[in-house]
Amino acid sequence: MSSDMSRLPNLVTFITDFGLDWGPVGICHAVMRGINPQISIVDISHGIPAFDIRAGAWVLTSIFPYVPPAVHVVVVDPGVGTQRLPIAILCRRGDVLIGPDNGVLMPATRRLGGIVEARKISNKALMRPDISYTFHGRDIFCPVAAHLSSGVSFEDVGEVLPISDLVQAPWREPEIYEHRVVAEVAILDKFGNIRTNIEAADWPLSTGEKIILKHKNNQVNLAVARTFGEVNRGDLLIYEDSSRFICIGQNLGHAGNTLGIGPGDTIQLERARS
Amino acid sequence: MSSDMSRLPNLVTFITDFGLDWGPVGICHAVMRGINPQISIVDISHGIPAFDIRAGAWVLTSIFPYVPPAVHVVVVDPGVGTQRLPIAILCRRGDVLIGPDNGVLMPATRRLGGIVEARKISNKALMRPDISYTFHGRDIFCPVAAHLSSGVSFEDVGEVLPISDLVQAPWREPEIYEHRVVAEVAILDKFGNIRTNIEAADWPLSTGEKIILKHKNNQVNLAVARTFGEVNRGDLLIYEDSSRFICIGQNLGHAGNTLGIGPGDTIQLERARS
Amino acid sequence: MSSDMSRLPNLVTFITDFGLDWGPVGICHAVMRGINPQISIVDISHGIPAFDIRAGAWVLTSIFPYVPPAVHVVVVDPGVGTQRLPIAILCRRGDVLIGPDNGVLMPATRRLGGIVEARKISNKALMRPDISYTFHGRDIFCPVAAHLSSGVSFEDVGEVLPISDLVQAPWREPEIYEHRVVAEVAILDKFGNIRTNIEAADWPLSTGEKIILKHKNNQVNLAVARTFGEVNRGDLLIYEDSSRFICIGQNLGHAGNTLGIGPGDTIQLERARS
Repeated sequence: MSSDMSRLPNLVTFITDFGLDWGPVGICHAVMRGINPQISIVDISHGIPAFDIRAGAWVLTSIFPYVPPAVHVVVVDPGVGTQRLPIAILCRRGDVLIGPDNGVLMPATRRLGGIVEARKISNKALMRPDISYTFHGRDIFCPVAAHLSSGVSFEDVGEVLPISDLVQAPWREPEIYEHRVVAEVAILDKFGNIRTNIEAADWPLSTGEKIILKHKNNQVNLAVARTFGEVNRGDLLIYEDSSRFICIGQNLGHAGNTLGIGPGDTIQLERARS
Repeated sequence: MSSDMSRLPNLVTFITDFGLDWGPVGICHAVMRGINPQISIVDISHGIPAFDIRAGAWVLTSIFPYVPPAVHVVVVDPGVGTQRLPIAILCRRGDVLIGPDNGVLMPATRRLGGIVEARKISNKALMRPDISYTFHGRDIFCPVAAHLSSGVSFEDVGEVLPISDLVQAPWREPEIYEHRVVAEVAILDKFGNIRTNIEAADWPLSTGEKIILKHKNNQVNLAVARTFGEVNRGDLLIYEDSSRFICIGQNLGHAGNTLGIGPGDTIQLERARS
Repeated sequence: MSSDMSRLPNLVTFITDFGLDWGPVGICHAVMRGINPQISIVDISHGIPAFDIRAGAWVLTSIFPYVPPAVHVVVVDPGVGTQRLPIAILCRRGDVLIGPDNGVLMPATRRLGGIVEARKISNKALMRPDISYTFHGRDIFCPVAAHLSSGVSFEDVGEVLPISDLVQAPWREPEIYEHRVVAEVAILDKFGNIRTNIEAADWPLSTGEKIILKHKNNQVNLAVARTFGEVNRGDLLIYEDSSRFICIGQNLGHAGNTLGIGPGDTIQLERARS
């Protein structure tokens, strides 16, 4: 099994819901450096809300194609210690995704050209010798990532899994029609922008167009813009965000609070008749 | 155009208001490493309050002279996507400051010996090929910084800008008199200390002296101290902070809450008659 | 004086209560890199609650044995600028611990095989030339750590201190009996798990066993489990956590809030008669 491109040696990106206030992220860094002293670890986020697989999936997806081919570890793992599998997924672009089989890795695979092969992580030689029941990031996922980053082959992580057996994306895929789309809110970012799970390329927005946003029993008209400065202070806008998802924002305001919309909510967007 | 000292190769410091809970800081790291694999990125803060140019300016200034000559990127950029310019400033000490032309870079230049030259960032060869409307950190500022850190010349970033055209400091400069000073609060730190924009060298404090703090209709007497342990538990103090600004604190307390003073407030300090 | 193992060159771990929202952590990184350009700094936590020596001690202890022998700096230092000593402790495993003499370093020494020797940090050649009264992390602790990481001898930091003079652990050591233990809560982690200061090896839990938790006037029965998935959604459990302390959690819940237990609280655990 091969992929189109090889990955950068020594580069590992890292996403978790551990937070930065106690020690687990640092322990994982130290464990990975112990295995591969040349490693270059890029922390993408450790502030995924606890157990929020949907947010983890969105953040992982959002880093592509900006992050070069590498090993990417995601530990958002409410099922740690249960029968859920630890998995590794080789993607067409050359990246290897590592994490629990709970869907968190799946949405990103599309931006990476699709899945070449999935494997169960089972090779104990690539793990810590003593595996805890509650910290597989330290004992399984990060050690395997460090080994892969230092040149260990993808084939060595464990046996092949049928792709159809993998747990699917942790959100309802958008229903795309010509004039409307039904989709989910993935996260609110720090600025209050409402990041949806709609790939902008799937439902293109045109400057000057008006979009009707429906949420619960409310609806509001949104101007399509490219950037915040194109609308007045306090005005709402809808735009293709910098990570290529459709996003709803408010110039110098917090769109999520203004509209009462939060992660996991279903929204509908409709093109207004001009 | 030259400066007194050359900067450390490969060193880039990084300040933003992105927060660490989703992915943009990590994406910027990965983009910079893709351009300069030898890069050493020092994260100063990504917790600047959203759009708070004043706080960003204070934090950047506070790292000098402790941080050696390097490339310093600041992305606090409420005007992203508008006509505000992306700029690079070469300082006498050898540092290059990179960010939006909104004043965030200006207060630090004094500690770096002043401005040698400012340039508009316009050389597209130093940017990402596709530039988004809302994430110039990833697409312009960080790529340019990475190129500079790997040896690209300052002159290559773009055309010279008249220094007098740059947007000035994002605060009112302190009015310094012999016995009093009128100034602004720049930030409250995690411990509740009130960090002002007064360079301590401009209005020196003497141990044993008493200072009258006036804020709105209130006034309070403060003892000058060098450190918290010199006053009783719960007592207020005024001191030259470790970053060489004048600061008001409270031993084992939160001065900002105790005094009802926050960022952007105007305060007046007066030397009490002894 | 020697230890069993030598430490990894260039590796420094770093724990503080500075927070990440303003600049001090980054300044310390830059200062250390200026001294040792080859340094590899692993941030364990900068979110220790302000002045919380107990939390700092627990987090430092929790990283062992997972982090390899190295230099470990802890700056949780309410007494900065007072007579409290800056100290360095060489441990049997080969690690050097650096921080203020307020007990924060002490609990970890047991997991590192005990103390070989303690020294007062007094060699000014290893510090910044100008030492502030309020930021010894930047001016003393981190510079010394960087010098040690680049090969300076432990003996060079300053004169030997009698081990018996060191400030002891910042918590009451657990009282261990066969059927019960009286102990302290060290921290609540991000997930609400109640992390105690009981080394799991000192009071082993057996799967299937029931434990009675007493706190103030309340008591509750807890099932011993290895992992969250072994109990029903919302159920409490007691387990050996991944850092080898005894911990009380709640499956998909926040044990601390549910039980009204927080850091510093005294708890008693009793083995229930079966």
